[in-house]
Amino acid sequence: MIVIKECIENVRKKKPLIHNITNYVTVNDVANVLLACGASPIMSDDLEEVEEITSICGGLNINIGTLNKNTICSMFRAGKRANELGHKVLLDPVGAGASKLRTDTAVKLIKEVKFNAIRGNISEIKTLALGSGSTRGVDADIVDAVSEETLDNAIEFVKIFAKKTGCIIAATGAIDIVGNEDKCYVIRNGSTEMSKFTGAGCQLSAMMTAFLVANPDNELEAAAAAVCAMGLAGEIAWNNMKPCDGNSTYRNRIIDAIYNMDGKTLEEGAKYEIR
Amino acid sequence: MIVIKECIENVRKKKPLIHNITNYVTVNDVANVLLACGASPIMSDDLEEVEEITSICGGLNINIGTLNKNTICSMFRAGKRANELGHKVLLDPVGAGASKLRTDTAVKLIKEVKFNAIRGNISEIKTLALGSGSTRGVDADIVDAVSEETLDNAIEFVKIFAKKTGCIIAATGAIDIVGNEDKCYVIRNGSTEMSKFTGAGCQLSAMMTAFLVANPDNELEAAAAAVCAMGLAGEIAWNNMKPCDGNSTYRNRIIDAIYNMDGKTLEEGAKYEIR
Amino acid sequence: MIVIKECIENVRKKKPLIHNITNYVTVNDVANVLLACGASPIMSDDLEEVEEITSICGGLNINIGTLNKNTICSMFRAGKRANELGHKVLLDPVGAGASKLRTDTAVKLIKEVKFNAIRGNISEIKTLALGSGSTRGVDADIVDAVSEETLDNAIEFVKIFAKKTGCIIAATGAIDIVGNEDKCYVIRNGSTEMSKFTGAGCQLSAMMTAFLVANPDNELEAAAAAVCAMGLAGEIAWNNMKPCDGNSTYRNRIIDAIYNMDGKTLEEGAKYEIR
Repeated sequence: MIVIKECIENVRKKKPLIHNITNYVTVNDVANVLLACGASPIMSDDLEEVEEITSICGGLNINIGTLNKNTICSMFRAGKRANELGHKVLLDPVGAGASKLRTDTAVKLIKEVKFNAIRGNISEIKTLALGSGSTRGVDADIVDAVSEETLDNAIEFVKIFAKKTGCIIAATGAIDIVGNEDKCYVIRNGSTEMSKFTGAGCQLSAMMTAFLVANPDNELEAAAAAVCAMGLAGEIAWNNMKPCDGNSTYRNRIIDAIYNMDGKTLEEGAKYEIR
Repeated sequence: MIVIKECIENVRKKKPLIHNITNYVTVNDVANVLLACGASPIMSDDLEEVEEITSICGGLNINIGTLNKNTICSMFRAGKRANELGHKVLLDPVGAGASKLRTDTAVKLIKEVKFNAIRGNISEIKTLALGSGSTRGVDADIVDAVSEETLDNAIEFVKIFAKKTGCIIAATGAIDIVGNEDKCYVIRNGSTEMSKFTGAGCQLSAMMTAFLVANPDNELEAAAAAVCAMGLAGEIAWNNMKPCDGNSTYRNRIIDAIYNMDGKTLEEGAKYEIR
Repeated sequence: MIVIKECIENVRKKKPLIHNITNYVTVNDVANVLLACGASPIMSDDLEEVEEITSICGGLNINIGTLNKNTICSMFRAGKRANELGHKVLLDPVGAGASKLRTDTAVKLIKEVKFNAIRGNISEIKTLALGSGSTRGVDADIVDAVSEETLDNAIEFVKIFAKKTGCIIAATGAIDIVGNEDKCYVIRNGSTEMSKFTGAGCQLSAMMTAFLVANPDNELEAAAAAVCAMGLAGEIAWNNMKPCDGNSTYRNRIIDAIYNMDGKTLEEGAKYEIR
């Protein structure tokens, strides 16, 4: 089995190019965190070019954060093309559950595009599992936050949904669960203040895509390593905060921490158990 | 009467969710400043989902900074739905006066949507008051910058336009005026360097929306408190600037200052008179 | 001949207003770097208003970074209007060569709009020179990176393409070449780490537009001065980096360095030769 530190080292070595169809809120941070971890970003969402752009990339990160009728079409087209090419494809179902458009788009994407990983918070993941309209998928009778008390239940849920979708499910929050149908990484890196700036999740999804591309034969470990890296960066950055610093500086410092993170630091700082 | 400090404390306590239809230039800072003051942001501008998104929020912030034909439709639809639900709605008429599209859109929004507050610089507010085309509203024969010399005139103008529109008018600049038809807060917080980065106005509009939502029965005080908070953050951040710091760091430091601002700091730092 | 330092001093004195049709990835940094150098930004890309917006500006910066079918139309319309008005117009062909849409759009823009300058990396510039489809322009048989070994060749290429297009060509990278048909500035400012955050190129293009507007009769010197300023800012910012700083802080520090740069600093720090 690949060790955690190799996952980030492979990103720095292979410098994968990642195609992002993503929201305009956090897009700059997404680009910078990809560069910070050693990957390269391309952002492109016009229907006419997304197939061609995704072809020259190693992976595709689809984030529905500020979806609109034009970009939704591009997501499907790019996703299908990436599938044909055998590229890694990740879905970040931002706000699934908040509107029918988001839920339906995410559910339909999962039906028509083969994803290697889906990363969201537990409530977004649950929405996908429940499906939309009359479609009911797996039983998703779990609470909307993962705590030590609800952990067993959540792990079980993640494994079932991973089996159903055939892809890695990364449900992130206070405790992160990254699993396939057989095996779950339970990760306890991070800091609660990471929810006080916008985009930690978007950044993680982009970075996870890069980790998947650079570690093609070790998808689960790569996805877990990306989650550990983001959480550890949050811890390192928090330790460097000075009295007047706030959420804007914290956001910058986390990307900086990824920029400076080597394999050894990640390996030693990663806090996970396998379930 | 509510005291200034309660206004920010209520935001931190109630954590209002704010729907933003806003420009792509400053959207990340808008999201982060909302988080900094204790609120939560959602950005959504697709016609198909804006009514649903605004329904789950407490307030709506409409900013026409990079308006386009699609988002303009969404502004009207979301605004009308927010009105039906009794949500607080704010307009930031960025660039009104710079193009017919912006002026017409802002003027039409004011006609068709009931706003709780309009926040812009004095020249944008004046454009709205003058109206577009043959529509002439109140007499807006005032200069384009508020100084001690033009203050009386500007206060009178704000009160008349507030009466005409039935909403709070916040004309911000070197001196800020926040008023309804009866009463104006004249605020002297802030630093001239706040015009040297992009988005102080956009951030303030978003934050003001959150303050309105969290202080529903004290709209004028809430709007004034948001202006004081932004200006005070500009002062605090300026005092923390180091020799090599410039406008980019200043921007981060202001959001940080909001993040760290408690009610006591705001109350003591607010510089206003009531006219 | 104008000296380098006057070029930035003129921007600070004249405060040109720059219309940007630019990508949503780096748009915030573009706005802030324009403010940092003394100019003012307006972002606007809706077909209905771009002619009017560009009319009230001094220059137009067209960046195809996240082009789409709507904004492409706006680029042509704004470009043609700016030409009619005699405004300075710059093209940043981001990603030309990465998709047919980008290449075709950039090539067609050059045909239908008269640019004062085109700024891109050598590979983007080469793509434009080669043209698209059956159109072959100048011989662009050069490598995709400018080094001391390939410099002579690259200078020759820049001069030929500048002659063909009738505008200044700025090919930036490890070594920057800024030339017209007769004369090239070879600039050796900058730091390799500038490629580790997103948007140094976008920022430079915007700033170069402002420099052209403020120095209308010295276009080549103005364009070269902008390149020197950006590179020098990269050096100054790099020297200020602390152990935990990374690419996100570096990005902020570069804008800060532009904010603090006076003519004397630029003049003394500019590293160029004329060929």
